Amino acid sequence: MTDIMKNEQQYPNSTIKTLLNRRTIRAFAPTPISDERREILELAAQRAPTSSFDNAWSAIRVTDKALAEKIAAIGKQKYIAEAPLLYVFVVDTHRNARIAAEKGVPADDAVAFAQQYTYNQAHDDAVLALDAMQTAAESMGLGVVLLGSILNDMPQLVKLLHLPSLVFPVLGIAIGEPDQSPALKPRMDRSRQIFENRYPEDSETESMVEALASFDEAVHQYYDLRDTKKPVDRFTDQIAAKATNPAPATKPFAKYAKEQGFKF
Amino acid sequence: MTDIMKNEQQYPNSTIKTLLNRRTIRAFAPTPISDERREILELAAQRAPTSSFDNAWSAIRVTDKALAEKIAAIGKQKYIAEAPLLYVFVVDTHRNARIAAEKGVPADDAVAFAQQYTYNQAHDDAVLALDAMQTAAESMGLGVVLLGSILNDMPQLVKLLHLPSLVFPVLGIAIGEPDQSPALKPRMDRSRQIFENRYPEDSETESMVEALASFDEAVHQYYDLRDTKKPVDRFTDQIAAKATNPAPATKPFAKYAKEQGFKF
Repeated sequence: MTDIMKNEQQYPNSTIKTLLNRRTIRAFAPTPISDERREILELAAQRAPTSSFDNAWSAIRVTDKALAEKIAAIGKQKYIAEAPLLYVFVVDTHRNARIAAEKGVPADDAVAFAQQYTYNQAHDDAVLALDAMQTAAESMGLGVVLLGSILNDMPQLVKLLHLPSLVFPVLGIAIGEPDQSPALKPRMDRSRQIFENRYPEDSETESMVEALASFDEAVHQYYDLRDTKKPVDRFTDQIAAKATNPAPATKPFAKYAKEQGFKF
Repeated sequence: MTDIMKNEQQYPNSTIKTLLNRRTIRAFAPTPISDERREILELAAQRAPTSSFDNAWSAIRVTDKALAEKIAAIGKQKYIAEAPLLYVFVVDTHRNARIAAEKGVPADDAVAFAQQYTYNQAHDDAVLALDAMQTAAESMGLGVVLLGSILNDMPQLVKLLHLPSLVFPVLGIAIGEPDQSPALKPRMDRSRQIFENRYPEDSETESMVEALASFDEAVHQYYDLRDTKKPVDRFTDQIAAKATNPAPATKPFAKYAKEQGFKF
């Protein structure tokens, strides 16, 4: 990090300060979010870029506490239901398929909306919109956690949210006043993640584990509020552990996306 | 939009102002981006959330003009090669697979990294990182275009960037001083994209085309700098046209992702 970034008064602007100080918040004060703030968050999501101007995403705001608790049960995280604001962002080509049908497009052609790249585009749209909402929330001092865990049971989530064909869950986001102050989680050296003109040959880095030694050490020093009883494993040890005991394929998104009408 | 948003001096903060005024920039001044700004953009990308802390994305900064022109040829857009900064963000589980192998994890287990949900997670990671870079750039007054078009020929892009197994392109991003000033592109009414507690039944909206009438009209009034000779088609007409003449499945991402070693 350059000297300019070490002194926070010298961030080029407050957005950069927000982006460089991102940390996941998993404990929220019960303070409600005002309607005005909620509107800003939703408008920021809508302003995200959308591939081919398809606008092929939607979001479900979960305000029903019983529903939120069912979603929290899928994600196995109590804070999902405790957050003052909870959304599930979804791929949505259902709306566009309806438009095409109303305009008299034959069903066989309209099915093109379900083709695999359309799925990919719509998926990107949903993530971009969700990230804009995250950034907007963080800029107002709110805390955010993104929720891949709610995909642990995709069929159940689809059912709970009444998602019709050509709609599919992507990620959740929980937002609220932070009730914890986690440390900034380390990132690997920039040169290990951002390359120039081509992906490096394996032979250029004899040992990836050695190459990531300082990152490993920083991760090991990091203090994780989720489990303060033991130090965090080094990054490369975390990866090795996950590879040794891979989680069962609990989230076969292609299988379930096909069930929702998408083609791969 | 609430009154508070109509007067830009009343945006809650400059980040919200940036997010609510996003527009795609497709013409860039030749002014280079300073190394310091580039570093900020890359660090902002690295600070994005990463699913399960897998850090399973990378980016290729394209500085070789001959390479940029080949990528621009795939995307069929000259501005891709004219932008002072160009990146291709990629799903990257190759790095983690190498770590697992170095740590002695048997190859069969390490293959778990190639499972489909891991692909999905890594894909989200890449989009989140790219969007953080976009927001950082826009906050500094730079213009941005996201590039799905560079995926028109995935095998060629994979080859040009020397992407090994378990690495796959997601999106490109071109950044520079804006040399155009496009209007803000309309978005549909918030109530048509963000729902409460469940996805609405089709029967709740008799005609989606009618429901989107004011959005359609706003899109029709929008002035597209890419083709100033004719008004922009209404949104629902754009969708119907795309459904009537669907693009051939030129970007079968699942097929090519499988060729890169991912499983679906």
